[in-house]
Amino acid sequence: MNALPDIDAVETAARRIAPWVRRTVILQSASLDALAGCELVFKCENFQRVGAFKFRGACNAVFSLDDADAARGIATQSSGNHGAAIARAAQLRGVPAYVVVPTSIAATKRAAIARYGARVIDCAPTMAARNAGMAEVIAETGAVAVHPFDDARVIAGQGTATLELLEQVTAPLDVVVAPVSGGGLLSGTAIAAHGRSTHIQVWGAEPASAADAQASLAQGRRITEWPIDTICDGLRATLGELPFAILREHATGVATATEDQIVAAMRLMFERLKLVVEPSAAVALAAILAHPEPFTGKRVGVIVSGGNLDLERLPWQ
Amino acid sequence: MNALPDIDAVETAARRIAPWVRRTVILQSASLDALAGCELVFKCENFQRVGAFKFRGACNAVFSLDDADAARGIATQSSGNHGAAIARAAQLRGVPAYVVVPTSIAATKRAAIARYGARVIDCAPTMAARNAGMAEVIAETGAVAVHPFDDARVIAGQGTATLELLEQVTAPLDVVVAPVSGGGLLSGTAIAAHGRSTHIQVWGAEPASAADAQASLAQGRRITEWPIDTICDGLRATLGELPFAILREHATGVATATEDQIVAAMRLMFERLKLVVEPSAAVALAAILAHPEPFTGKRVGVIVSGGNLDLERLPWQ
Repeated sequence: MNALPDIDAVETAARRIAPWVRRTVILQSASLDALAGCELVFKCENFQRVGAFKFRGACNAVFSLDDADAARGIATQSSGNHGAAIARAAQLRGVPAYVVVPTSIAATKRAAIARYGARVIDCAPTMAARNAGMAEVIAETGAVAVHPFDDARVIAGQGTATLELLEQVTAPLDVVVAPVSGGGLLSGTAIAAHGRSTHIQVWGAEPASAADAQASLAQGRRITEWPIDTICDGLRATLGELPFAILREHATGVATATEDQIVAAMRLMFERLKLVVEPSAAVALAAILAHPEPFTGKRVGVIVSGGNLDLERLPWQ
Repeated sequence: MNALPDIDAVETAARRIAPWVRRTVILQSASLDALAGCELVFKCENFQRVGAFKFRGACNAVFSLDDADAARGIATQSSGNHGAAIARAAQLRGVPAYVVVPTSIAATKRAAIARYGARVIDCAPTMAARNAGMAEVIAETGAVAVHPFDDARVIAGQGTATLELLEQVTAPLDVVVAPVSGGGLLSGTAIAAHGRSTHIQVWGAEPASAADAQASLAQGRRITEWPIDTICDGLRATLGELPFAILREHATGVATATEDQIVAAMRLMFERLKLVVEPSAAVALAAILAHPEPFTGKRVGVIVSGGNLDLERLPWQ
């Protein structure tokens, strides 16, 4: 296991990726504030390159490599946004990318990975098939693997969204909320937030039907066997080792939302914020609305994680 | 007819409405630039209060009134966004609003008008019925009428979006494109753009099936009898007198797009910009893609006019 990244790693990542990432805007809505009973500040990573925060971590990992390693190419496995992010970061660095994707991937996400010039390797939608696909492509190409979340460079990169958010707000935040799946974003968020102020509370949000992070933190051990079934295609991984260690250290809470609550929150974000967000990006607002107690009356930053989804049919239709 | 507003009127409007309006962000997309063959800068008025640029003009008109006039209340007729904008501006000023709306209005837009505290008066979806509804409510209440576009205060307010856009861009724009219907936005855009630089070209965009502005400017006379049939519920008015005079003076071009092109552009804006936009707001990008000649290789500002639509069914579904 890599060493745990710290605030210095996040700041180094911010400088390293600054030429490549977008400084995404923040948005607010008085009507959502009224609904939630708190002041919400949305950090719009759906506007990030490749349409998701994942570009930050991928970019930090790819541009951390020395030239010899980078030249071998980058391999990863992903249910979507991380794959696109690695593909785009590798393209910007001018090296090959190999992305193993499950056949369950959203068509838009698969197309984006290919558009960014990566070789897409399809596999069955199981962790075993994904790992086997990775092993095969690495054996064949010698590419360097970049894990979607169990990687200190990736975690540090994801934390840069929160560094920016804290610079952009006009008054200090009391809480920052981010979705949690493998935990790369949430652990990076915790490191960045607490690196700036130990008074900021950090909350994760996950689907009630994929609540392994909440259970893992409550029980003090990683629960990796969890029957995950959620509309949030970006939140189907279980908590990684490195994120688990970081989240324990940072005493991070996790709130959940049901599938119906996630769909309702997603629709609210379309309607009130005029933002196209994917279901995974709506879980934070959904959890705040479902469990308002920790947030009531506070200033709450929300990481809007991404906006990639098949637009043929929206989930409330 | 009021006197034609000028750049001073737009600057005065900008100062007057500054406490109330949002300074909306600009967004760019490399993939849309590649598709269009020009550099596009989107001014996101879908993020404006009430979800549309219309709030700027309504706010300028409502806050221009002296206290005695304002106290009588504000009356208007609108197929949607202007009604919501008047309702919200009147609410902020603490005076009543009366909004005559055709029964063909999108449910979301009608609900918004009511949410902002206005009295909603339904009428048949014809200009005659709308005018009769207005006459009745004014006779009954003594309210001051604020026309959606044939009003110098409204036009000056709409122009403030372009003033902001020109301040926000990092390099000068060659062209600014805005949708045209009654012409309040486009004429305000022309005044603001040419007030800053006479080198900026100003283009309107309208549905091919509602191309009365293009025909009116080509023929040098307002054509008000036009069989308008378009998905763009915000673009069903014909060009007003005051906007017509301004657009002639400013030698404004008008490009059109078919209904299919508008829907395709709307979908592109959802997918690539992650923006929720209404059909009327997609006509500018659609016209640029359909008629690229005047824009090729240029830096093009695009006013994204609004984001209010019924989300139950998107038009490509």
